[in-house]
Amino acid sequence: MGGNSLGSLFKITTWGESHGEALGVVVDGCPSRMELSEDDIQREMDRRRPGQGMGTSPRKERDRVRVLSGIHEGRTTGTPISILLWNEDVDSTPYDELKDVYRPGQADFTYQSKYGIRDHRGGGRASARETVGRVAAGAVAKKILAREKIELMAYTIELGGIRAEERDLEEVKKNSLCCPDKDALRDMEREIEDAKLQGDTLGGLVEIVVRGCPPGLGDPVFDKLEADLAKGLMSVGAVKGVEVGAGFEVARMRGSQCNDPLGPEGFAKNDSGGILGGISNGADILLRVAIKPIPSIRLEQKTVDRSMRPVSLQIKGRYDVSAIPRINPVCEAMVAIVLADHVLRQKAIA
Amino acid sequence: MGGNSLGSLFKITTWGESHGEALGVVVDGCPSRMELSEDDIQREMDRRRPGQGMGTSPRKERDRVRVLSGIHEGRTTGTPISILLWNEDVDSTPYDELKDVYRPGQADFTYQSKYGIRDHRGGGRASARETVGRVAAGAVAKKILAREKIELMAYTIELGGIRAEERDLEEVKKNSLCCPDKDALRDMEREIEDAKLQGDTLGGLVEIVVRGCPPGLGDPVFDKLEADLAKGLMSVGAVKGVEVGAGFEVARMRGSQCNDPLGPEGFAKNDSGGILGGISNGADILLRVAIKPIPSIRLEQKTVDRSMRPVSLQIKGRYDVSAIPRINPVCEAMVAIVLADHVLRQKAIA
Amino acid sequence: MGGNSLGSLFKITTWGESHGEALGVVVDGCPSRMELSEDDIQREMDRRRPGQGMGTSPRKERDRVRVLSGIHEGRTTGTPISILLWNEDVDSTPYDELKDVYRPGQADFTYQSKYGIRDHRGGGRASARETVGRVAAGAVAKKILAREKIELMAYTIELGGIRAEERDLEEVKKNSLCCPDKDALRDMEREIEDAKLQGDTLGGLVEIVVRGCPPGLGDPVFDKLEADLAKGLMSVGAVKGVEVGAGFEVARMRGSQCNDPLGPEGFAKNDSGGILGGISNGADILLRVAIKPIPSIRLEQKTVDRSMRPVSLQIKGRYDVSAIPRINPVCEAMVAIVLADHVLRQKAIA
Amino acid sequence: MGGNSLGSLFKITTWGESHGEALGVVVDGCPSRMELSEDDIQREMDRRRPGQGMGTSPRKERDRVRVLSGIHEGRTTGTPISILLWNEDVDSTPYDELKDVYRPGQADFTYQSKYGIRDHRGGGRASARETVGRVAAGAVAKKILAREKIELMAYTIELGGIRAEERDLEEVKKNSLCCPDKDALRDMEREIEDAKLQGDTLGGLVEIVVRGCPPGLGDPVFDKLEADLAKGLMSVGAVKGVEVGAGFEVARMRGSQCNDPLGPEGFAKNDSGGILGGISNGADILLRVAIKPIPSIRLEQKTVDRSMRPVSLQIKGRYDVSAIPRINPVCEAMVAIVLADHVLRQKAIA
Repeated sequence: MGGNSLGSLFKITTWGESHGEALGVVVDGCPSRMELSEDDIQREMDRRRPGQGMGTSPRKERDRVRVLSGIHEGRTTGTPISILLWNEDVDSTPYDELKDVYRPGQADFTYQSKYGIRDHRGGGRASARETVGRVAAGAVAKKILAREKIELMAYTIELGGIRAEERDLEEVKKNSLCCPDKDALRDMEREIEDAKLQGDTLGGLVEIVVRGCPPGLGDPVFDKLEADLAKGLMSVGAVKGVEVGAGFEVARMRGSQCNDPLGPEGFAKNDSGGILGGISNGADILLRVAIKPIPSIRLEQKTVDRSMRPVSLQIKGRYDVSAIPRINPVCEAMVAIVLADHVLRQKAIA
Repeated sequence: MGGNSLGSLFKITTWGESHGEALGVVVDGCPSRMELSEDDIQREMDRRRPGQGMGTSPRKERDRVRVLSGIHEGRTTGTPISILLWNEDVDSTPYDELKDVYRPGQADFTYQSKYGIRDHRGGGRASARETVGRVAAGAVAKKILAREKIELMAYTIELGGIRAEERDLEEVKKNSLCCPDKDALRDMEREIEDAKLQGDTLGGLVEIVVRGCPPGLGDPVFDKLEADLAKGLMSVGAVKGVEVGAGFEVARMRGSQCNDPLGPEGFAKNDSGGILGGISNGADILLRVAIKPIPSIRLEQKTVDRSMRPVSLQIKGRYDVSAIPRINPVCEAMVAIVLADHVLRQKAIA
Repeated sequence: MGGNSLGSLFKITTWGESHGEALGVVVDGCPSRMELSEDDIQREMDRRRPGQGMGTSPRKERDRVRVLSGIHEGRTTGTPISILLWNEDVDSTPYDELKDVYRPGQADFTYQSKYGIRDHRGGGRASARETVGRVAAGAVAKKILAREKIELMAYTIELGGIRAEERDLEEVKKNSLCCPDKDALRDMEREIEDAKLQGDTLGGLVEIVVRGCPPGLGDPVFDKLEADLAKGLMSVGAVKGVEVGAGFEVARMRGSQCNDPLGPEGFAKNDSGGILGGISNGADILLRVAIKPIPSIRLEQKTVDRSMRPVSLQIKGRYDVSAIPRINPVCEAMVAIVLADHVLRQKAIA
Repeated sequence: MGGNSLGSLFKITTWGESHGEALGVVVDGCPSRMELSEDDIQREMDRRRPGQGMGTSPRKERDRVRVLSGIHEGRTTGTPISILLWNEDVDSTPYDELKDVYRPGQADFTYQSKYGIRDHRGGGRASARETVGRVAAGAVAKKILAREKIELMAYTIELGGIRAEERDLEEVKKNSLCCPDKDALRDMEREIEDAKLQGDTLGGLVEIVVRGCPPGLGDPVFDKLEADLAKGLMSVGAVKGVEVGAGFEVARMRGSQCNDPLGPEGFAKNDSGGILGGISNGADILLRVAIKPIPSIRLEQKTVDRSMRPVSLQIKGRYDVSAIPRINPVCEAMVAIVLADHVLRQKAIA
């Protein structure tokens, strides 16, 4: 079990530690005869690289993917696709002094509690670097979705308390924070500068929209589409909340407001977020996730060591100010992986 | 696949339609030699009956559980526990006129899209009545948790826009809305009266707290405890959002605020909601879910029939004003089921 | 986990004890809009009733199936199909004296070892009666296979050391032992008479042939078609061996004999049994299983009680002389269930 | 799905093609804090190398394993263990002429039928080389079994029609055919010489014995220990039959012979093969598998090309005369993997 696999028909298994030899993913259940190249995967991988967003660190991380199996003459063969990334030029010495310290907000204490041992170097398996396997698998999933004309996009709708009012998706690809609101962007950048100066980090919100999803995806009652999406997104380390459609706003709605009237041309509005009774209804699928601020801050913190003795901790090195926007393609990947699985599941019973 | 099972080691499979012959659940993987009686299960079942909350309808639904297997001389045998509830005295005639109409906010359209056929009577499989199997399985799960001294409780923290400020858990069992704040309770009751008069329904928020959970439950990276909990809770029909700990509030926090400092006596605060890196940390697990207003309102609505022709719809009969508080024990059950599974998973590798 | 489910897309979960309230099966993942009635299932169930074969006991067991969910107006809805059989008029008193005795060849000792408790009445969960759920699910599986023009049949090719030389499948349905060889039939009947007189029981071999299976079913490398079939068949209590095609005979073959030459009209012979590399090749799938003699014999036996003290055991009551031919439809059901699952799996990636 | 994973708690996923970049396995669910080194795995890997048995080819295959994750300071961390082997110095040119030919007895035709594409080089995913991942995972599984004092061994009991009468397990490690009967060994060697001269190949039987297995492993009813073992073993390419205990011999037994009497010191004999009702009974687990002759023979064969036109085929290069004894450690690995899974499953409910 171990928990390192996701999916039923389109199934991924990730492995690897932040400062181990390598990280990777095995994608099983991908249909055959699909065009797929290392470049297709590399392109997605490059989107989560450090130095992509303004709030991100200039550290070099080459993330060059290698596809070791499952492709023959440029096409998938139906056998497992194994994708690997070496951890090159990793320097673990900065982590030596953290070997016996439990960093607040990190998984140090819980991994030690669960396993009685942990690879402390760079957060080990709990590192954000674990998501490279997800993004690689997401690139494969997107190929399956593309065959069905399903598209998706993640973008930043809040950062450091600054909310994007606009949803200009053209704008998303143009700016370094993947923000669909030019005005909000400027304020977000200012927040980042401020937090960086103070040695602190920022949280935010990411929205994911799926277009072109046909009605019929999702399996009641436990594998409801929103349930599987919630699991996929909540399995991303920094995510502390997931909502679909109107989300938490439904708490303040009455039924007469919340119900989406259905007309000959489809739904008049989309508070359901494209899912009813666990099954897609043909409208856009709309999801939102809450991203917590990165726990590694430069400010001094109070914590304990392995003997539960109080220690004062000051983390060195360069860290991102926010998981956003590097986490955006990870969210996209998770949604793509879950949807690809349900696309295949639906084919099985059609 | 079908999506009607949940869990890996403690596995439940529910079946049944609202107006079919019966509904039930098969619980597989329950440890042997645990005391378990029909009464244990009945007690939980009674909590989700109509007429429990003020906002709920006076309809009679006897929900008498029968345990058909897996128990011998008052103890579990380790074999599957099959629990059944008959659908007695069901009158489906009110649904005859809904046979070809897609009710807004319901799964009518999506079931038809997915399966090309649907049991329209009482919502079929998409009915809230499907949750009886969950609550029955939850009663079994709670037995497993009780052996580990893990307790949990769900309560209403918002209804119709009225927010509970207090968290007086003693109060929860005393009032019909399961609200931990006596003052808010009165306002909530007023909202219910108002909505009822207008033929409308209300949404709200339910919070679930888990006490006594040891560190170490949850399996990174995909089966993180919060990911499995999010899936379990989001698989409940009315839930549109799930958050853990500070939840969506983390978007507005800085790392220095959000990190929970760790001291010799444990965590100084609990914005993480008791889970770090997907593994329980020993603090209370804190979850919140957004409950949408029940889509069956008495107000006239616009929708379409099976030929996508516009029709005007007025739903008759008596309906609850809110899924709260009947949904509270369902939320509790889902959390209990997910936790019981992880309790067993942790035993396997300990 | 618990082990009471089988299948990935077409998934069955059985429950129930021999002398409990009832037994049943939940079939999840069945495609919608398939015609299915209680009679379809009853017909299969009747084939495994006592009194069917000459070597079987005249005990009455009414096995009237009830379908409680998943069917609407004569068609499957895509939701779980719950099938139940009551254990009517069960008299457990003959088992009172076996409460603390471990019967040789039975699961008494191992259930007690594993679970620390057991339902001793009629063998509890380990009873052959558990297979009613399998046969019911098999009836549903056969409907899926019929849509693909896949047919299958199980028949007796050896009983009490008498081997059928002929494979006259027309004959199979005509005689009470489901034997495809009229001459062997007479000798088998004589063996049965002899064993009955001596209070002993007989083993035998059952062969299952699948016709019309298209090439392409089965998933390398672990879910090879023969691997899943072997698991399904070996999960039947009395089965001690499974072989495909030439089976154990391959041990004495040379490659030049064993390889099936492929010509424009297909395979020239079928020692592979219709499967190559785990995938069906379009030829008949041919399987054989070894059935052990029923352990309940009237002859006195030596064993121990729960305190491991030696006791002498003489089992009373009427028992079948052989699991054959009542086990034949069970074998058929298992093959049908595994094939139906792979039919759906193949659709998913096609 | 894809079929490339096995196990529930101790779960392995293999990937890779014979002549691709690399092959490997991801082992998920391994308990933490177990000592494990690359050497532990290498040792097992070396047992399946060519040139090990007399009937095997002198080809060089370096099979140097690399462990890329899941181990920290010589101990398992509870995170996935990724093991990789490069395919070095692979020359695929001999396969160029087989690109459009379906070799008899191989998976060429079926892979093409299923996937519409295949990696023809060296048999692609269907190659025996795929088993390196299994053997590597088996080495990890054996570590789990060793903690429970469970040992196992596979040995050759028949080759080319020569049957071993003795079971001298000390002898097994001493000779190149892993045969427990010195006298039979000589005749087997003669058969190999003869087959080699004729350009033909040999089948045989492998027996696997498990010692020290406690009562209680195995989950009725579908995940019976023998059912999971049968699946694991039948998933090995060359295996065409599996039997447990007396196996196919039970067909000719009477109940009075077949039942193993139980005394204060345990079972008086072991025709059940150590499993009753799907659960281990504490006696040795005894399994036998039928190994077909390797389909790659030097003799000329008739077959068809991709257009189903008849062609004459003569395979060049050096091939093993028999899959035995290189397949023996693969069988051992499969049994170890299945048992390790059930060891963990039993801990979960104990």
